[in-house]
Amino acid sequence: MCGVSGCYLLKENEAGVYNYLILHANQHRGQESAGICVYDGLRLVGKKGMGLVTEVFDRPDLRKLSGPVGIGHVRYSTTGASELVNAQPFKVGYSKGELALAHNGDIVNSEELRRELVSDGHAFVSETDSEVIARLLAVALTETDDMFEAFEDVMERLVGSYSLTVITSHGDLIAVRDPWGFRPLCLGWDERGFFVSSETVGLDVLGVEERRELERGEVVWIREGDVESKVVRRERKAVCMFEFVYFARPDSIIEGRCVYECRKCMGKRLAEEAPVECDLVVPVPDSGRTAALGYAESLGVPMEEGLIKNRYVGRTFIMPEQEERVRSIRVKLNPIREVIKGCSLAVVDDSIVRGNTSRQIVEMLRDAGAREVHMRIASPPVVSPCYYGIDMATKEELIAADLDVPEICEKISADSLAYLSLEGLVESIRLKKRELCVGCLTGEYPTPVPE
Amino acid sequence: MCGVSGCYLLKENEAGVYNYLILHANQHRGQESAGICVYDGLRLVGKKGMGLVTEVFDRPDLRKLSGPVGIGHVRYSTTGASELVNAQPFKVGYSKGELALAHNGDIVNSEELRRELVSDGHAFVSETDSEVIARLLAVALTETDDMFEAFEDVMERLVGSYSLTVITSHGDLIAVRDPWGFRPLCLGWDERGFFVSSETVGLDVLGVEERRELERGEVVWIREGDVESKVVRRERKAVCMFEFVYFARPDSIIEGRCVYECRKCMGKRLAEEAPVECDLVVPVPDSGRTAALGYAESLGVPMEEGLIKNRYVGRTFIMPEQEERVRSIRVKLNPIREVIKGCSLAVVDDSIVRGNTSRQIVEMLRDAGAREVHMRIASPPVVSPCYYGIDMATKEELIAADLDVPEICEKISADSLAYLSLEGLVESIRLKKRELCVGCLTGEYPTPVPE
Amino acid sequence: MCGVSGCYLLKENEAGVYNYLILHANQHRGQESAGICVYDGLRLVGKKGMGLVTEVFDRPDLRKLSGPVGIGHVRYSTTGASELVNAQPFKVGYSKGELALAHNGDIVNSEELRRELVSDGHAFVSETDSEVIARLLAVALTETDDMFEAFEDVMERLVGSYSLTVITSHGDLIAVRDPWGFRPLCLGWDERGFFVSSETVGLDVLGVEERRELERGEVVWIREGDVESKVVRRERKAVCMFEFVYFARPDSIIEGRCVYECRKCMGKRLAEEAPVECDLVVPVPDSGRTAALGYAESLGVPMEEGLIKNRYVGRTFIMPEQEERVRSIRVKLNPIREVIKGCSLAVVDDSIVRGNTSRQIVEMLRDAGAREVHMRIASPPVVSPCYYGIDMATKEELIAADLDVPEICEKISADSLAYLSLEGLVESIRLKKRELCVGCLTGEYPTPVPE
Amino acid sequence: MCGVSGCYLLKENEAGVYNYLILHANQHRGQESAGICVYDGLRLVGKKGMGLVTEVFDRPDLRKLSGPVGIGHVRYSTTGASELVNAQPFKVGYSKGELALAHNGDIVNSEELRRELVSDGHAFVSETDSEVIARLLAVALTETDDMFEAFEDVMERLVGSYSLTVITSHGDLIAVRDPWGFRPLCLGWDERGFFVSSETVGLDVLGVEERRELERGEVVWIREGDVESKVVRRERKAVCMFEFVYFARPDSIIEGRCVYECRKCMGKRLAEEAPVECDLVVPVPDSGRTAALGYAESLGVPMEEGLIKNRYVGRTFIMPEQEERVRSIRVKLNPIREVIKGCSLAVVDDSIVRGNTSRQIVEMLRDAGAREVHMRIASPPVVSPCYYGIDMATKEELIAADLDVPEICEKISADSLAYLSLEGLVESIRLKKRELCVGCLTGEYPTPVPE
Ligand SMILES: Nc1ncnc2c1ncn2[C@@H]1O[C@H](COP(=O)(O)OP(=O)(O)O)[C@@H](O)[C@H]1O
Ligand SMILES: Nc1ncnc2c1ncn2[C@@H]1O[C@H](COP(=O)(O)OP(=O)(O)O)[C@@H](O)[C@H]1O
Ligand SMILES: Nc1ncnc2c1ncn2[C@@H]1O[C@H](COP(=O)(O)OP(=O)(O)O)[C@@H](O)[C@H]1O
Ligand SMILES: Nc1ncnc2c1ncn2[C@@H]1O[C@H](COP(=O)(O)OP(=O)(O)O)[C@@H](O)[C@H]1O
Ligand code: SF4
Ligand code: SF4
Ligand code: SF4
Ligand code: SF4
Ligand SMILES: [Mg+2]
Ligand SMILES: [Mg+2]
Ligand SMILES: [Mg+2]
Ligand SMILES: [Mg+2]
Repeated sequence: MCGVSGCYLLKENEAGVYNYLILHANQHRGQESAGICVYDGLRLVGKKGMGLVTEVFDRPDLRKLSGPVGIGHVRYSTTGASELVNAQPFKVGYSKGELALAHNGDIVNSEELRRELVSDGHAFVSETDSEVIARLLAVALTETDDMFEAFEDVMERLVGSYSLTVITSHGDLIAVRDPWGFRPLCLGWDERGFFVSSETVGLDVLGVEERRELERGEVVWIREGDVESKVVRRERKAVCMFEFVYFARPDSIIEGRCVYECRKCMGKRLAEEAPVECDLVVPVPDSGRTAALGYAESLGVPMEEGLIKNRYVGRTFIMPEQEERVRSIRVKLNPIREVIKGCSLAVVDDSIVRGNTSRQIVEMLRDAGAREVHMRIASPPVVSPCYYGIDMATKEELIAADLDVPEICEKISADSLAYLSLEGLVESIRLKKRELCVGCLTGEYPTPVPE
Repeated sequence: MCGVSGCYLLKENEAGVYNYLILHANQHRGQESAGICVYDGLRLVGKKGMGLVTEVFDRPDLRKLSGPVGIGHVRYSTTGASELVNAQPFKVGYSKGELALAHNGDIVNSEELRRELVSDGHAFVSETDSEVIARLLAVALTETDDMFEAFEDVMERLVGSYSLTVITSHGDLIAVRDPWGFRPLCLGWDERGFFVSSETVGLDVLGVEERRELERGEVVWIREGDVESKVVRRERKAVCMFEFVYFARPDSIIEGRCVYECRKCMGKRLAEEAPVECDLVVPVPDSGRTAALGYAESLGVPMEEGLIKNRYVGRTFIMPEQEERVRSIRVKLNPIREVIKGCSLAVVDDSIVRGNTSRQIVEMLRDAGAREVHMRIASPPVVSPCYYGIDMATKEELIAADLDVPEICEKISADSLAYLSLEGLVESIRLKKRELCVGCLTGEYPTPVPE
Repeated sequence: MCGVSGCYLLKENEAGVYNYLILHANQHRGQESAGICVYDGLRLVGKKGMGLVTEVFDRPDLRKLSGPVGIGHVRYSTTGASELVNAQPFKVGYSKGELALAHNGDIVNSEELRRELVSDGHAFVSETDSEVIARLLAVALTETDDMFEAFEDVMERLVGSYSLTVITSHGDLIAVRDPWGFRPLCLGWDERGFFVSSETVGLDVLGVEERRELERGEVVWIREGDVESKVVRRERKAVCMFEFVYFARPDSIIEGRCVYECRKCMGKRLAEEAPVECDLVVPVPDSGRTAALGYAESLGVPMEEGLIKNRYVGRTFIMPEQEERVRSIRVKLNPIREVIKGCSLAVVDDSIVRGNTSRQIVEMLRDAGAREVHMRIASPPVVSPCYYGIDMATKEELIAADLDVPEICEKISADSLAYLSLEGLVESIRLKKRELCVGCLTGEYPTPVPE
Repeated sequence: MCGVSGCYLLKENEAGVYNYLILHANQHRGQESAGICVYDGLRLVGKKGMGLVTEVFDRPDLRKLSGPVGIGHVRYSTTGASELVNAQPFKVGYSKGELALAHNGDIVNSEELRRELVSDGHAFVSETDSEVIARLLAVALTETDDMFEAFEDVMERLVGSYSLTVITSHGDLIAVRDPWGFRPLCLGWDERGFFVSSETVGLDVLGVEERRELERGEVVWIREGDVESKVVRRERKAVCMFEFVYFARPDSIIEGRCVYECRKCMGKRLAEEAPVECDLVVPVPDSGRTAALGYAESLGVPMEEGLIKNRYVGRTFIMPEQEERVRSIRVKLNPIREVIKGCSLAVVDDSIVRGNTSRQIVEMLRDAGAREVHMRIASPPVVSPCYYGIDMATKEELIAADLDVPEICEKISADSLAYLSLEGLVESIRLKKRELCVGCLTGEYPTPVPE
């Protein structure tokens, strides 16, 4: 997955710094690489690198990224190997100058589009969908100078999820959300200018109060200090439910819903659907914490932080080569024996993908003295892969693809296991089911998908 | 502050990897630099660097740090500038070979000791206390080959806090805790060998079950596969209360007490001492969370995670130069308006040092719609600096040094403010007051301190 | 300028190492960036970086660059800023797979070609001519699988100098020399396989004895272990005279001529054309040394190395900011006072471009006690810029563009100044004048050039 | 070997830049690591790193190294592994403040001195002689504030070669040459201040005209803008002849002799002692070039640069793992077949150490068509190791240790071989034999040496 940012400053030249701050707030959306590209009044200049925003940029970098308009990107690879050439923003020279593009999402038909482009003689330098979009846009812009028209062409071709920020060497900033609205994207403004962020937390950090989310299919075009907007193409609404369940920060607002409150509601609803007699509710930190709060509150059982997460586990941790030397889960999570010894636990997590982590957690908690371990999952089973940018696993790896709930329960050796129902999930989010993408839960996707 | 590690392997050569894992679990004790030094069967070889354990060491480094015995260190500077020359372990050649030393703590009389040594013609390459200890040890070891005797000499001279791990080019591992027991240090063992860690979490990650904490004044000397131990010097017990309040990981055990339970107890006790009518209890994450749980539970008011911490804030974040561009607190903490709007909040944190953060939190919560903000602090006011390794601030900067509680309350603009009492604290930890250091709370220190 | 390399191994997989060695021998052709790309049996994998070959590649890199076929590049920028994105080889995915291209030269009509391509909707990621060539080639290869046909199309469009090496993900290696033969390119072979190098010194280092230079307009296509060759397009011969005068290594063979011997001959001829009464002949090292030997020999005057060049002057030397602190020439060249004091000197250099260096040399030699300083230049005055890849300077900066020889002599404060005549140059190289490019000496170029 | 630098500025604060320039001119004396340490008006601050001066320091580094007084060092390791901890200047805190020291040379009795120091309880952090000297100096300075007195003590203890620059946190600069005068050291001055450099070329680059070499045993102490000097200890003169033969830059002046002229004289003298009938004289570049000029001139045979050296061969070149893939000599030296084919050659080099290079050169020249190859060496056979800082090889590796000249000739397959006589060498240098160290040529050393 990825996060995107953008800014259009009316009086300042600190586009680099503003994008740095927005990206930093969206860092959880991608830790593999980071990049910023700014219009310096003349040309587009950028820097990208592997690692966190704070690892890629130092103070001299930010000083060099000086200009009134800029975009940024944080990346966790779905398409394209983990190499610098695949990092974004993706910058190109085209018929009218230069443009740079940052993309969050996954294009379902990108291979087909790429094939069409190369059979027209186009040549690609990266493996990313972003390059496909950039090249389609470059083609469209040979015919027109109107960004709305160009994006009409481009969006007609693209199937899949895309929240985009784009800048040009004319100093324009464009923000785009795909016609289904899979991924979040919001726009804020105040006297300093306009700001774009994948999640609202990117505006919070700047203290930007005025804001709205982009509509699905909307193109926002900011130039010469003015904002124009147009809904260029529209499909059925299909907001990714997984943003609410796991991916987004709890303090973000998506489709007008506070993610924290949705998660808490999922926990409460789960308590109604699948209560359990237990001494303690224990969250799997950090992603299970909010639902656990709701679950415990609703059940009237105390919550205890019986598992502590090492906050320094990340991209660069080196797992020892001999697996037996240390159980990998212990590097990340540590049970507090004093808290859980002799207790019957309801352990709440947001979701189960492969099931390995859950199995190890159960085993670890038993070793630490838990009498019973009941797993409670605040979303339905994931039975099918995601084609829209969430790198869950292949179908084969999904534990719920072939096993039913009792089988999974056995596999992870829990005393009991329950998932939130699809209805429970949908009602917790308070969107209609037909407004959400729930493809990975049902196998029914809002767009055609590859076989 | 700092963390130290050590291992003595009976069958393997992976001392580098084991220290890496122990240090990683102790990473919260110091993020500025990291180092590992191993005995490779012949000599001591090491690597140190600025940054996190995962930033300093890559896989080839760990392969090179091959040998049966080794020590490690993570550092947050108190003495000595933030430079590589001050990173540890500190390695020297001495009369009997080589030794390397890792130190957690602060030596109160180090300037005096340093002055004595240089007036004997010694010359120092760093500004660290560790070098003072290492040079004293080197002098002592010219007279004797017995580590206990040598440390008797050394510990007679040292005033202050020190948990040490030491290795020699004879392949010995030594672990030492100062005569007051300021800082934690524990020893674990199983069929793989012996392991030393500042906190017990460093043993948890390895799955080492057999363990004990070192006694104050104890020297553990492991050589040729055998452990010998001796309490070499003893002063009044003075375990740092701040380890329980803030510094240690909640899942660690210190002086037999589970830190998490102590913190929860502080929260409960605070609820008894300073209850408040409120709609919600909100922790200041992460350090206030455990006490907040206890406070909420005891008060019978729901707890909500109304403040979300950006987990990527760290050492390398670049704060924009023009302060006004963004309020610094917003980069780290974000309130959830939907949760707190219109509510009266009891905000629980572990401690207040300078007061800046608390002031900004109160302001931010009000801006986000909180009706009332009552600060509840799960420890007594800090009125005096620490001389034993916790880098709190100078006396001038301590908000409670000159102001009483109502004045502080006004300064941070809270609706009310209450601290835990000293008795409350002591009873939550369940040690006797005379067994704890509470110097920074009372100005009465367990050792002579500089004027 | 740049250098290119290529290899096609029949039995080994060390394409990375072979290209490393060839590039290292061609390092004088470009010190700004270096890159290698190999076909690993499946795909093209590469590495490029800023700096010397030895700075960009370490042993693990070379191990990773494993495969039977590969190309390489060293770059000194003429088009495109000094950034990694402009480094080569340039790799793209096209309709039939992947291809990578390394280019030495300068395309005169590249802006026009680029404009045509972008108006067809192509988008460019770099500012290099190499990308223009690669995109033209990608377009051509949509129509045909025949490399000769494809290059017929491409070479019809390209005006300017280009020696190319290309690999594809089918494992083919292609080497191309432009229809004028501006830049050198040679092919060698033995039982290990086929090797391509800008200069013959790249084959010398491998001990490859069998070799030939590519003809102008020739395309060599190696696939499935077989070599095919075809002269695809031919224009008048226009070998760059400056390769003989300055650019190439003296131990290289170009157009069958040994560069060292050509230079020596230029020196001898210069002695005939412009003898001088002097005590000593002093070369400006390193580029003036060979001609100086010839000049001294022919004149019968002893040669002395009266100027010593600091061999560590390079790309990364930091010139102090206050110019007056040190005369910049002194960092590079140092006169030996003991050798030249009181002497009348004939100072021999290969060429004068801006004239700054010559002026400083004269001044420095006088300061060091030279009685007379006679400058002797082993090539004619440079009066016009180069459009074919030698980054000499703009017309305005060329000292001989506006000044005649006596004026230049005055400007550089020499006692006398003489250049080699054009005839002298041509005869020293032993090619016909119409077979050489002498554009920068006469303003008459072998191709149309921009106004 | 190593090079040292120092400066004491009267009006400026650019000690970092001046040392950078002096070190750069002395770079040939050591390419492994570089370091600069300056007195910033208060304290000593420094930077050191592995690699060339231009690799270690960037512009921000030089800006940070701001202050009126500073020293520098370039290192090629003789004692101490190639690690950063062994890089210099070596900085310590001692009884009166801080001092830093840069050392060129080798202390014969350093192990003994180190043993004495550690048995007094001193502990060493590096393996360098410099640390031994610094600790002795620190001990001496506890007794006295007089640098002359302190160095009297220190120099009484030290046996071996040492040219030193030292700074203190009082802002003093001290330069010292050992009592034998093994290694060069010179002092220059003008209105900008005082400058110290291993070789005179370091003063040339600054345009400093006023200068003198330090006398053997002399201590120069610059403080508060005044220079004091004293010859503190004197032994028999023993200037290293190898500085003249090979090590120093040809444009340096040592003991009043121009190195270039000495080398030229060695070549002439060699022509008298060992003439040969030949078509061409060919130097082995770069070190053989000057002697070859003299040899050719004296013999009346033309000199040709029949061997070209790749100027990019250095510390970081990666030799391919399979030796047979490429003959290592070819990476460094390339013969010009056109020049030497069918000729009888007199090949002139400065010295033979192990003999490998000579053997490979002969073979390569024959392969390139030379009819006869006569090796002429412009110094006598090296039969014994150096104990004073030149890292020649162990006795076992020295080809002339066990073999006489005809045997060596056979081993390297030359048609004939001749060395310069010792008398010839001494007379070329124009010092008395008893004023030179010729230990490695005779086995008779000017000081006691280890067995
Ligand atoms: N700053 C933050 N504060 C709290 N939660 C966060 C923050 N950033 C991301 N998250 C949440 O963290 C969760 C992922 O964290 P976690 O469970 O610790 O890791 P994992 O991906 O291993 O499950 C997501 O639910 C996301 O919403
Ligand atoms: N892995 C961990 N999990 C939970 N808490 C931790 C962990 N590591 C350290 N801590 C706790 O984090 C606290 C410090 O974190 P926090 O409050 O987020 O930062 P700050 O130092 O800014 O107050 C300490 O109380 C420490 O006990
Ligand atoms: N800038 C320079 N110009 C010319 N000669 C130099 C320079 N710097 C060092 N030297 C000389 O280079 C010689 C060593 O170089 P060379 O023969 O090329 O390498 P090697 O050490 O392999 O023999 C020494 O004789 C030294 O005097
Ligand atoms: N390995 C080498 N040996 C000798 N000459 C070389 C080598 N590599 C490049 N050259 C020559 O060096 C010359 C450029 O060097 P030089 O005169 O020292 O630098 P500058 O570019 O400053 O004039 C060119 O003439 C080139 O032919
Ligand atoms: S398939 Fe699942 S994860 Fe993917 S967009 Fe749809 S709901 Fe989200
Ligand atoms: S003074 Fe305070 S922080 Fe320091 S050791 Fe004592 S209790 Fe701990
Ligand atoms: S213009 Fe001059 S430098 Fe350029 S190719 Fe022609 S001869 Fe060579
Ligand atoms: S032994 Fe040889 S190399 Fe060493 S100092 Fe004496 S003459 Fe020089
Ligand atoms: Mg999780
Ligand atoms: Mg905190
Ligand atoms: Mg030159
Ligand atoms: Mg040599």
